[in-house]
Amino acid sequence: MIQYIEGGVCAAKGFRAAGIHCGIRKNRTKRDLALIVSEQKAAAAAVYTTNLVKGAPLLVTKKNIEDGYATAVICNSGNANTCNADGIEIAEKMCALVADKLAIDAKDVVVASTGVIGQRLSLDPIAAGMDALVADLGNDGAHAAEAIMTTDTVKKEVALSFEIGGVTCKIGGIAKGSGMIHPNMATMLVFITTDCAIAPAMLQKALSSDIKNTFNMVSVDGDTSTNDMVSVLANGMAGNKEITCEGEEFDTFMKALNGVTVALCKMIAADGEGATKMLECAVDGAKDLETAKTVAKSVICSSLLKAAMFGADANWGRVLCAIGYSGADVDVTKIDVDFVSSAGVVSVCRNGAGIEFSEELAKTVLSEKEIEIKVNLNDGACSSKAWGCDLTYDYVKINGDYRT
Amino acid sequence: MIQYIEGGVCAAKGFRAAGIHCGIRKNRTKRDLALIVSEQKAAAAAVYTTNLVKGAPLLVTKKNIEDGYATAVICNSGNANTCNADGIEIAEKMCALVADKLAIDAKDVVVASTGVIGQRLSLDPIAAGMDALVADLGNDGAHAAEAIMTTDTVKKEVALSFEIGGVTCKIGGIAKGSGMIHPNMATMLVFITTDCAIAPAMLQKALSSDIKNTFNMVSVDGDTSTNDMVSVLANGMAGNKEITCEGEEFDTFMKALNGVTVALCKMIAADGEGATKMLECAVDGAKDLETAKTVAKSVICSSLLKAAMFGADANWGRVLCAIGYSGADVDVTKIDVDFVSSAGVVSVCRNGAGIEFSEELAKTVLSEKEIEIKVNLNDGACSSKAWGCDLTYDYVKINGDYRT
Repeated sequence: MIQYIEGGVCAAKGFRAAGIHCGIRKNRTKRDLALIVSEQKAAAAAVYTTNLVKGAPLLVTKKNIEDGYATAVICNSGNANTCNADGIEIAEKMCALVADKLAIDAKDVVVASTGVIGQRLSLDPIAAGMDALVADLGNDGAHAAEAIMTTDTVKKEVALSFEIGGVTCKIGGIAKGSGMIHPNMATMLVFITTDCAIAPAMLQKALSSDIKNTFNMVSVDGDTSTNDMVSVLANGMAGNKEITCEGEEFDTFMKALNGVTVALCKMIAADGEGATKMLECAVDGAKDLETAKTVAKSVICSSLLKAAMFGADANWGRVLCAIGYSGADVDVTKIDVDFVSSAGVVSVCRNGAGIEFSEELAKTVLSEKEIEIKVNLNDGACSSKAWGCDLTYDYVKINGDYRT
Repeated sequence: MIQYIEGGVCAAKGFRAAGIHCGIRKNRTKRDLALIVSEQKAAAAAVYTTNLVKGAPLLVTKKNIEDGYATAVICNSGNANTCNADGIEIAEKMCALVADKLAIDAKDVVVASTGVIGQRLSLDPIAAGMDALVADLGNDGAHAAEAIMTTDTVKKEVALSFEIGGVTCKIGGIAKGSGMIHPNMATMLVFITTDCAIAPAMLQKALSSDIKNTFNMVSVDGDTSTNDMVSVLANGMAGNKEITCEGEEFDTFMKALNGVTVALCKMIAADGEGATKMLECAVDGAKDLETAKTVAKSVICSSLLKAAMFGADANWGRVLCAIGYSGADVDVTKIDVDFVSSAGVVSVCRNGAGIEFSEELAKTVLSEKEIEIKVNLNDGACSSKAWGCDLTYDYVKINGDYRT
């Protein structure tokens, strides 16, 4: 019943989006200001970074959606508006500019910023760009998806349709995220829209529950950003009976939401700064979910394993090593490890010890763009997945001189 | 009273050492087998990695020094003897070979291995090399320091003299460690020798206490090795009255030990895989020691900050970000940050917000080989330091194809 469709944040009924270059970023070919607008006021939910250093826009958004509703999202790239004395004031003024143009309440605006930390964000280019931004509003979410990119090399959008009580609903999202990605009870910048009718409390419940197994299981570089946020707007325009409690319809919504978030997670991991490969660590046979998650995340975060994957080197000892220091209580003498890709499967470790394998096959398997590191703890029935990418020369290059 | 002197593990009276190429490593110019021998049986203490995957040699060493004494240390590089079905047997046989040659008990041998995980370690080259190894024993620890190197680019040895009750004692050590370095209640491979007389229990107490502020505060890449170990042999040949309890003499010994361990920590950090710079994060003004340590370690571990330091980019937002996600309970609006090197000081952040600074001065300061990241939390009187290095292209290169 759940089906992937074309589009992103405008796939759901009643949403329009825009993205322009207003001048925050020096490169004139890069869009740096995005706007998403719902025709009707929408139920709103969000999760935020757990970093104690929080971007000013997050604090303003949190206050604005306290009542459970929002109508528009504004987001700039090129400057995080974080660690600035006047950050809150600037974020509030961004909301006011949107409210003014759209004749809505400033308290109904979700605001986000991404880019360099600790440089003052000038309101001038944003104010000057508002007319062009509103003029760009249309039914294609691509401009908005581009405008939130920083070091991302590709825009990230996904959408799908699903049915609630015989009514077809749609949900779609866009994401930015390439570096400083190691979400912790929150995540990178993600904006999701749906026309499904769902009460704010249930929307928040769905989101908070989903991210534990999706965005919180992605890591590019172990650095938890100050500006991470995922927000969902649900405007109810599909016409289904509003979801107000748990049950079959809520489960369907959760599945649809998960379809969007997992797809965005993989896109973010694959486009990790400097990445040439997307890595998925799939852990099975764990005695509980927490163990499975801890192991999957630890493997995906190992700099040594990430560098080995870049070199297509089947150095499985680094997988065992990362499991061993993960803090999870596992029996290392039971662990099996396989490397899997579209080119085949190579089994490298059984019962915690190496087994003979063809280095040639391993090289072939690990030369693909998507690599699955399969770990079986042989100690129970719980599973988890985490996503990341390889560590490359380009990660160093991109981050060696990011500000200038 | 504490004075740095020439030498390493042979600086203290009654210790001889050797290092040869026996054939574990393919490169014939690289020594791969080290031996350290005390003329008299010595008090022995050690700390080990907390990684659940533990190298077989560590398990054998732990058993061998259960009685608090040892006479010799054997260590090979080129193979970690970890995750191998016959690992324990091989490690025990290494001890037996040493015992045989030196006419000592195999239970008095400390054994260690470092190198690739999960490849069987053959005893043949070691057995064949024993005569040459023993013939190489001399009063210069340099060969042993070389023989324990893996991806290290320089050998690491240090020694100092100190006085206990009017008697001059000496202590010295060697270390290997370049990658897979993120000690957790243990550390990389370090062998320390002293002629100071100290009871085994006090020696273990001194070591266990010291590493919390030294080796456990070093990180090259966030990966806690399976084969980390620090051991100390104290043969008492200086002739001081044995230290058997806490007090002034124990404190002096602690200071001397700390002089050796801090020096080795800095050497390890400076020689981190691919490193061009040694980073020291000095945290002051913390409300308690735990907070200071957590903040210092988090900053030193940030891949983003490490890459910025490689590029001599004063991207202090990444320092704030790493403090924010460290898990320490700090007031981010009180934090001051300065970058310090022999070229000067550049203040970049006051009260959690950016201040104007000369980019030119910052570039000059950050272009030196040793950079101090000074963080003041302005929230108390506790301090801590952590050591690490920058993240460079060469780290990726070294680890992209380590096995082949």
